[in-house]
Amino acid sequence: MKLPEFEAIIDAHQRIGKYIHNTPVLTSSAINRITGAELFFKCENLQKTGAFKFRGACNAIFSLSPKLASHGVGTHSSGNHAAALAHAASLRGITAHIVMPSNSPEIKKKAVEGYGGIITYCEPTLEARESTLQRIADSTGIEIIHPYNNIKVIAGQGTAAKELMESYPDLDLVICPVGGGGLLSGTALSVKSLSQKCRVIASEPAGADDAYRSFRAGYIIPSLHPKTIADGLLTSLGEINFAIIIRNVDDIITVTEESIIQAMRLIWERMKLIVEPSSAVPLAAILENKKLFSNQRIGIILSGGNLDLTNLPF
Amino acid sequence: MKLPEFEAIIDAHQRIGKYIHNTPVLTSSAINRITGAELFFKCENLQKTGAFKFRGACNAIFSLSPKLASHGVGTHSSGNHAAALAHAASLRGITAHIVMPSNSPEIKKKAVEGYGGIITYCEPTLEARESTLQRIADSTGIEIIHPYNNIKVIAGQGTAAKELMESYPDLDLVICPVGGGGLLSGTALSVKSLSQKCRVIASEPAGADDAYRSFRAGYIIPSLHPKTIADGLLTSLGEINFAIIIRNVDDIITVTEESIIQAMRLIWERMKLIVEPSSAVPLAAILENKKLFSNQRIGIILSGGNLDLTNLPF
Repeated sequence: MKLPEFEAIIDAHQRIGKYIHNTPVLTSSAINRITGAELFFKCENLQKTGAFKFRGACNAIFSLSPKLASHGVGTHSSGNHAAALAHAASLRGITAHIVMPSNSPEIKKKAVEGYGGIITYCEPTLEARESTLQRIADSTGIEIIHPYNNIKVIAGQGTAAKELMESYPDLDLVICPVGGGGLLSGTALSVKSLSQKCRVIASEPAGADDAYRSFRAGYIIPSLHPKTIADGLLTSLGEINFAIIIRNVDDIITVTEESIIQAMRLIWERMKLIVEPSSAVPLAAILENKKLFSNQRIGIILSGGNLDLTNLPF
Repeated sequence: MKLPEFEAIIDAHQRIGKYIHNTPVLTSSAINRITGAELFFKCENLQKTGAFKFRGACNAIFSLSPKLASHGVGTHSSGNHAAALAHAASLRGITAHIVMPSNSPEIKKKAVEGYGGIITYCEPTLEARESTLQRIADSTGIEIIHPYNNIKVIAGQGTAAKELMESYPDLDLVICPVGGGGLLSGTALSVKSLSQKCRVIASEPAGADDAYRSFRAGYIIPSLHPKTIADGLLTSLGEINFAIIIRNVDDIITVTEESIIQAMRLIWERMKLIVEPSSAVPLAAILENKKLFSNQRIGIILSGGNLDLTNLPF
């Protein structure tokens, strides 16, 4: 398996620079006081389509040859990757086929439709999602873009940490959430290439701790019956992602649901930023381990801000 | 009455630059599509203490001579000026006495306490607020800092539009909300000094339209029984503010409560920013008058993000 290197992230950044937001890095004296650390929040919730996923989707789609692109792209997803792929495809002027479980929230369906994606509904099982997508691919010739186990996607996600490190080169540590590992693997590649000393730590809900267990075991342990409010972090690690993570990540920490909600509320109230629960998982790790992180300069990737505003956990 | 000029805003910016955030200017393709205009949102909801008010409070407090400052400062307010003054005073290491109506929301009390302000409660009438504050001033010698009818406060508020115009010098129009007129008068001074062509328009809830009526009458008509969800815009215009507004503002537009809530929800959902209802009033004006604003490059000042997250209008 050939793993992507930092050069792929530099390429990606040049490719997608005109389509993405170089999102702001914000700070909060109040949260610094509470945690005893100095935090730098890279606001991917303010990215187009409301999540870092747009970076990877853009890089994957704009990397396709004209011939490959001409048939369109597709994925199965009920989350941020679906909206990101639909929007990136519309920018390239090609079709995006999105296979979604029939029980997906209305808000997610509307987002994909709003970006011009063509939705095909299926039964809410992984098997149905994969087979439905394959059937569409067989009949249309679309290029399937995996949400995280894809080197172009990984390189795109790594551009967020690249921007962060270029603005704040002397961070001691970068923390990001881990689900399938797309953001984490891209982040680790960027951070380790741009700094000698900066560590990379992932934070994961204890109720979906497959990455934590895989990292310790040294092989991928799939996510079985995950249960967490952080609905972006339910998936199992991809193989390419895991190979990068095991080489470049310093540690993975798990956090409780209570800490996630507490961290989310702090970000909403003190920073006036709408973040989805998955985005609050890194701050939750700091709140649970204040001594470990005290007085450090820490970059945090706020991964996204897509959630149902009428169903908040506070 | 001597009115402040743009030089006062340049001075203010130098004085407060190291204490304030130079807040980001964000854009949203989705909202641009919906409105047919090109909008640039100056995010004062991301300012320290969650509102532009910190700029004016900082300038007023750091303009005081050491002797005047030594006795501390004070104001009566149940809103963003109270928290801003308390925080700015703590930065200068002086006391802030805040007179608040006994029925102020818990969240506002906590904010002032959190910044180290000393609260004195009084009956919820303007008369009780003013007399209580005067009694404290008589016994302690504090300097009273009016929330908007104060040239140092106006100069401080004007720094937000100064930053906006310096980043986007070719705007056609800047829109901000109007309550007492502190933000509007400072904004108008900055915009008219930095651009020959850029117009300044204020937006005001129809249920609190004293500025609209005053602007048309040519004299101050006080706000009587105002009723709007935009609780930052209930106050009457100050005399200094009005004198600047009548000379420098091009128009004032009123908007409905429905438009305010619709605009607020758009900003939350599409931009992932927490803004209080008052901040949504300018976008509401654009939504209600799409033809008037189509194809224009418009700066909008998002004034603040302080509200009760458990009591949203949607």
